[in-house]
Amino acid sequence: MLKATIKEVAAEAEVSTATVSRVLNNSLKVSIEARQRVSAAIAKLNYEPSAIARSLKQDRTFMIGIIVPDITNSYFMEISKGIEDTVGQSGFQLMFCSSDENTDKEGRLLQLLNEKRVAAVVIATAGGNGDKIMSMSRSGLPVVLIDRSLDGQDGSNQLDLVAEDNKASAYMLTRRLLQDGHSALGVVNGPSCVSTGRERYEGVLQAIREWGIDEPSHLYNGDFSVEGGIRAVRQFGQTGSMPTAIVSLNNRMTFGVLLELIRRGLHIPSDVAIASFGEVESGQLLKNPKLYYIDQQPYDMGKRTGELLLSRMSKEKRSADPHVEIFHHQIKCIL
Amino acid sequence: MLKATIKEVAAEAEVSTATVSRVLNNSLKVSIEARQRVSAAIAKLNYEPSAIARSLKQDRTFMIGIIVPDITNSYFMEISKGIEDTVGQSGFQLMFCSSDENTDKEGRLLQLLNEKRVAAVVIATAGGNGDKIMSMSRSGLPVVLIDRSLDGQDGSNQLDLVAEDNKASAYMLTRRLLQDGHSALGVVNGPSCVSTGRERYEGVLQAIREWGIDEPSHLYNGDFSVEGGIRAVRQFGQTGSMPTAIVSLNNRMTFGVLLELIRRGLHIPSDVAIASFGEVESGQLLKNPKLYYIDQQPYDMGKRTGELLLSRMSKEKRSADPHVEIFHHQIKCIL
Repeated sequence: MLKATIKEVAAEAEVSTATVSRVLNNSLKVSIEARQRVSAAIAKLNYEPSAIARSLKQDRTFMIGIIVPDITNSYFMEISKGIEDTVGQSGFQLMFCSSDENTDKEGRLLQLLNEKRVAAVVIATAGGNGDKIMSMSRSGLPVVLIDRSLDGQDGSNQLDLVAEDNKASAYMLTRRLLQDGHSALGVVNGPSCVSTGRERYEGVLQAIREWGIDEPSHLYNGDFSVEGGIRAVRQFGQTGSMPTAIVSLNNRMTFGVLLELIRRGLHIPSDVAIASFGEVESGQLLKNPKLYYIDQQPYDMGKRTGELLLSRMSKEKRSADPHVEIFHHQIKCIL
Repeated sequence: MLKATIKEVAAEAEVSTATVSRVLNNSLKVSIEARQRVSAAIAKLNYEPSAIARSLKQDRTFMIGIIVPDITNSYFMEISKGIEDTVGQSGFQLMFCSSDENTDKEGRLLQLLNEKRVAAVVIATAGGNGDKIMSMSRSGLPVVLIDRSLDGQDGSNQLDLVAEDNKASAYMLTRRLLQDGHSALGVVNGPSCVSTGRERYEGVLQAIREWGIDEPSHLYNGDFSVEGGIRAVRQFGQTGSMPTAIVSLNNRMTFGVLLELIRRGLHIPSDVAIASFGEVESGQLLKNPKLYYIDQQPYDMGKRTGELLLSRMSKEKRSADPHVEIFHHQIKCIL
């Protein structure tokens, strides 16, 4: 069945399309009699006002675009769930996009969201699109950065940000391993093109340098993927001496590290101790792994992001100063 | 900066809005001179044609709505990634919604997608919305069911479906445990309101009845969540005799089962053997768990779904017979 148009409804009710529109918008300028005729025509023709037509009039949609680097990482999907649970109550709908940690793809997605006239954009950037993001924000579109700030360019502090205290947490994790007596540390690093990668590594370096060590004994530059963690352990193994402890700077890489260590028959923590930025739920299956982890709160970060979005989309708060909310963490341990 | 309108562009270029529109649509009916004036005005005013306006004209958007029951379950997000990787190349964008296994929420989301004039809908239904889904399909909207078919009502076989051979796979899993000598079987069941829950349990029952057993010794009706798996083991424990083997009918519940067994100090498989519908990546961290699992291929299912969507959205295939694609599986084992 083809959808009825507003013109057909108007013809059926013998009124103008403007009158149909007034009825749909509950305007008081319509006579009771005309209202009844329009309602009857709507019912008869099974007319549904197009959300597109309505959003065109307002030049905005009730959609919020969300760009994350990996939709299969539960960390980002927990954040998304927190956002949805908050903004959904106000009738906003999320449109998810996955950049796959790819700068070019992210750039195309930003362009698309802009064209779609989304009401706001939330992004955990793969890096390299600072100019585009800033330009969208300057054009009046509410933009909230999550998890990752922009490359340290001018103006990057003009955007709302909900993130974690990456440097301090990575510092704590590393220091804990040093205090436990480890000095041969392997570091599974994130990509340096994103802020979380850079900041976490800064925290690691600060901790070991304070301890009198110049550089980690083993370093692998990963990409926040499970495969990155697997490759890191393989590379460490090829040096002839495995580190006695590994700091892994994201949850997916940590899972890869655990997987490869166990494949090699190594015991955690007696052969290799682990400290992870982010919980790996599967770590709970290991027997007494004494696995240190930073207890991230992605769902709570999502809730705060949602609240911030709602306040930005209300006219009064649109031009308020940027709001930066940093979540601080504690170290926990899977005993 | 406020967005420029087509009227402002027309005024700046001293042409009609129809001429601006023709330039935007690369019409040949515009003089070179007018085209240059319009292009200059567009650049000067930083005008961006609204995707909303364009989609209104076509009464469709380039968006595909996807409703899944749990966006934090990597199984559904792998399917989604497969879909995105396929339809993204043709310029389609995914709009994700999470029903949280809630029939009412799913109903509201279906309504919303209909209003948004999406180009197609993909749904792994939480159950109970068969009439709404059928009605959307009958109105001409391409609808593809993934993972779950509709409640066995009339017409449910008129929809495209990409799913798994649930009954046969659950039958194989259960039979394997029986062949290994287990007779005290615990079953962690999915919800009976969705087809995967029902079909998998049918497969379990068929296997044990062929083996001469009437009912599983332990049965827990779960909800496809980690907590469901945890609660199942707790309930089994309260009966005084833990089953010697557990069939768990989805990946998230299996993780919960493993977690609770290990918390209780039980060894897998010597105390309790496990067979899981769906891989639990964390199972690889266990030492020789001999864990049987059905090797699902969610990414491939997503790719097929994407191809099916593209063919349905082309006019020729819109009214072709429904296409049902069932993925068959083998049992694998984490040794």
